[in-house]
Amino acid sequence: MKENSFILKGNICYSDTKDRFISVDQGYLVCCQGISQGVYSVLPEEYQNLPITDYGDHLIIPGMTDLHLHAPQYPFRGLGMDLELLDWLEAHTFPEESHYQDLEYAEKAYRIFTEDLKASATTRAVIFGTIHTPATILLMEKLEAAGLKTYVGRVNMDQNCTDLLKEKNADASLADTAEWLKKTVNQYQNTKPILTPRFAPTCSEPLLKGLGKLQKEYQVPVQSHLSENLSEIAWVKELFPWSSCYGDVYHQCGLFGGEAKTIMAHCVHSCDIEVEMMREKGVYVAHCPQSNINLSSGIAPIRRYLEEGIPVGLGSDIAGGANLSMFRHMADAIGVSKLYWRLVDQEKKPLTMEEVFYLATKGGGSFFGKAGSFEKGYELDALVMDDHGIHTTRDLNTKERLERYIYLAGEGGRIIGKYVAGVKI
Amino acid sequence: MKENSFILKGNICYSDTKDRFISVDQGYLVCCQGISQGVYSVLPEEYQNLPITDYGDHLIIPGMTDLHLHAPQYPFRGLGMDLELLDWLEAHTFPEESHYQDLEYAEKAYRIFTEDLKASATTRAVIFGTIHTPATILLMEKLEAAGLKTYVGRVNMDQNCTDLLKEKNADASLADTAEWLKKTVNQYQNTKPILTPRFAPTCSEPLLKGLGKLQKEYQVPVQSHLSENLSEIAWVKELFPWSSCYGDVYHQCGLFGGEAKTIMAHCVHSCDIEVEMMREKGVYVAHCPQSNINLSSGIAPIRRYLEEGIPVGLGSDIAGGANLSMFRHMADAIGVSKLYWRLVDQEKKPLTMEEVFYLATKGGGSFFGKAGSFEKGYELDALVMDDHGIHTTRDLNTKERLERYIYLAGEGGRIIGKYVAGVKI
Repeated sequence: MKENSFILKGNICYSDTKDRFISVDQGYLVCCQGISQGVYSVLPEEYQNLPITDYGDHLIIPGMTDLHLHAPQYPFRGLGMDLELLDWLEAHTFPEESHYQDLEYAEKAYRIFTEDLKASATTRAVIFGTIHTPATILLMEKLEAAGLKTYVGRVNMDQNCTDLLKEKNADASLADTAEWLKKTVNQYQNTKPILTPRFAPTCSEPLLKGLGKLQKEYQVPVQSHLSENLSEIAWVKELFPWSSCYGDVYHQCGLFGGEAKTIMAHCVHSCDIEVEMMREKGVYVAHCPQSNINLSSGIAPIRRYLEEGIPVGLGSDIAGGANLSMFRHMADAIGVSKLYWRLVDQEKKPLTMEEVFYLATKGGGSFFGKAGSFEKGYELDALVMDDHGIHTTRDLNTKERLERYIYLAGEGGRIIGKYVAGVKI
Repeated sequence: MKENSFILKGNICYSDTKDRFISVDQGYLVCCQGISQGVYSVLPEEYQNLPITDYGDHLIIPGMTDLHLHAPQYPFRGLGMDLELLDWLEAHTFPEESHYQDLEYAEKAYRIFTEDLKASATTRAVIFGTIHTPATILLMEKLEAAGLKTYVGRVNMDQNCTDLLKEKNADASLADTAEWLKKTVNQYQNTKPILTPRFAPTCSEPLLKGLGKLQKEYQVPVQSHLSENLSEIAWVKELFPWSSCYGDVYHQCGLFGGEAKTIMAHCVHSCDIEVEMMREKGVYVAHCPQSNINLSSGIAPIRRYLEEGIPVGLGSDIAGGANLSMFRHMADAIGVSKLYWRLVDQEKKPLTMEEVFYLATKGGGSFFGKAGSFEKGYELDALVMDDHGIHTTRDLNTKERLERYIYLAGEGGRIIGKYVAGVKI
């Protein structure tokens, strides 16, 4: 019997496009060496020797990708949320992140974070660390041991922030980053480094340009924040008067898609020039609806991004978002799109359950390559969900059970099996 | 030892006004014959003979009031939510509610509902049933047995709805309602009837006026829906051309506050005339933020209502809302108020954690009299909450722990004790 080759049986749901939701009752999900061989109503002859785990009536869906979250902020999720972005960073975020120069603190905090992430619906995640290389490496080691697939970023910031988190200068930041990349780029099976300028305001132009060079040298992806808040956008315009828009700051430094595979979190208030640049460069939007509510940022126009063919996934944005569960973020993505339709633009239809399911699975998963679906050739990430604790008089079909699970944000249900790239974790 | 007389020890939080949040660590909450005698840091001499339950480090807060929910809709919570109000009523709500003419179905459905409500954070609730008197009485009996404090409404509707749910005519509806009131008005200790015209469009003028007379005769309160959706408001204007606003339809029929204590659910799009009428008549607003999102209704201007001194509580609006947990509705009330500030009116500051905590406890509880607080003289409803499953590196104070519990909508925590009017349930 080959390693990581098996069959899961149950009521299976997945998407192949954002408009095509597939559901197979009592189906067979075939995994050979960690790769999906597809979903079948009748098990093909050739797989009949593989071991079957029969999950009975339970739901089996692809693992979720959390495209944007801050591991060091996990200790204060749900706290201090009566502020907007820039004040919240000063009051809560920067003080917390400064603790991670202490490896003992990092050990404790990242252990909690990793255990909770492992227990959640998330199989893949793209994560911010802090400016501290040793703590970031510690986080990477923990995530690797947990069996999750992640990109992890050592954060760069050399201006406009508390001294506790300010790197000495651009050169020092770049030298440390290069050293970190050397150590980690080929070190792990599941964990990869990602370049992580915090956001334009805390990065000098030499730092951003130097990171652009490192990107080319190491061929690593990039993540940052973009157009989350109106004051932030005005500040970027002051700091980088030569830029045509906020995104252009990253773009001019080689950190905005194209060869540099890039995720930009938020994009709540992106102007037309920026949206066009995102489209042209294939920049991923990490849509973080709960965070955009919590920090009073607004509602990102996700329908527009989908119409324009911009790749979109969902992010918890811990600790702008409070909940780790991607079911909550799916529910919130639908919710804010309904309010956007009602309050902002009635041309932009709300997102459907099928669409947010796609965004949370294949939409974000595609940043990792073939992930987030059960189509043949995809790395097999799967969740097995028990919803028998959610009582009703009705006989629900599989799609209705999934819809309910999403709208309830997982309340009353539980995850009873989790597989990442064909490995049960 | 007197009945229902005891002391709860723990980290205690409650409000006495919407702006005054009180927290007493390792405090003593004294209950004599079901009534709070207040919270003390040092136990007064006179109470030293009462039995103490020491909940250690756990949080103790007042029970929550759910000011608006539909028991018969519980079976389809989280389903069919891609529609707006009027279409959703036709497609999902009315067909489900028609099942309750079958008492066997009602028995099964209301058993599930009551068990889940009993296990939730809700100690008091104001509930819609259906047009079916026997099923509504069954629901009242189950709620009484569960030990929850509730108002329950047998629904009136004699026009503009599916034949399956249309009462024969106004006279028949009124006669059945009078009979139901006679049977239930003094029947239970914890469960009381409330007049429940579904909403103006499904009630003829003679029906509404007749209900106004019954209100005077039986001195019972009133609940209905108001200004939830723009199409609904336009429809009411067509149906009742003589009304100055939607609320005026109820008002002209004696069903809008004053002597007739009244809850109106939603009030998302109330015009100035209506708001003034609500203020003058002391009409309660049941704010149902999750439902208003799910049905794309919009955001109710709760800050304005609070500024005008209109009484406000929170409602889950099952099944417009999907989650029973009032923690979720507190989080959503804050969230939508932030989006209202950002997208609609920057003069209206977002609601704070302290304010929504007040709304969910004393705000809604006041509809029941002295309920929803631990002040001396209040009926003692209490929840004991274990949040040790929510891990962090930080030492949080009691208020921060409550804030986190609310923002996480209860995720990771659990209710380990529940008291209603001094009775542990």
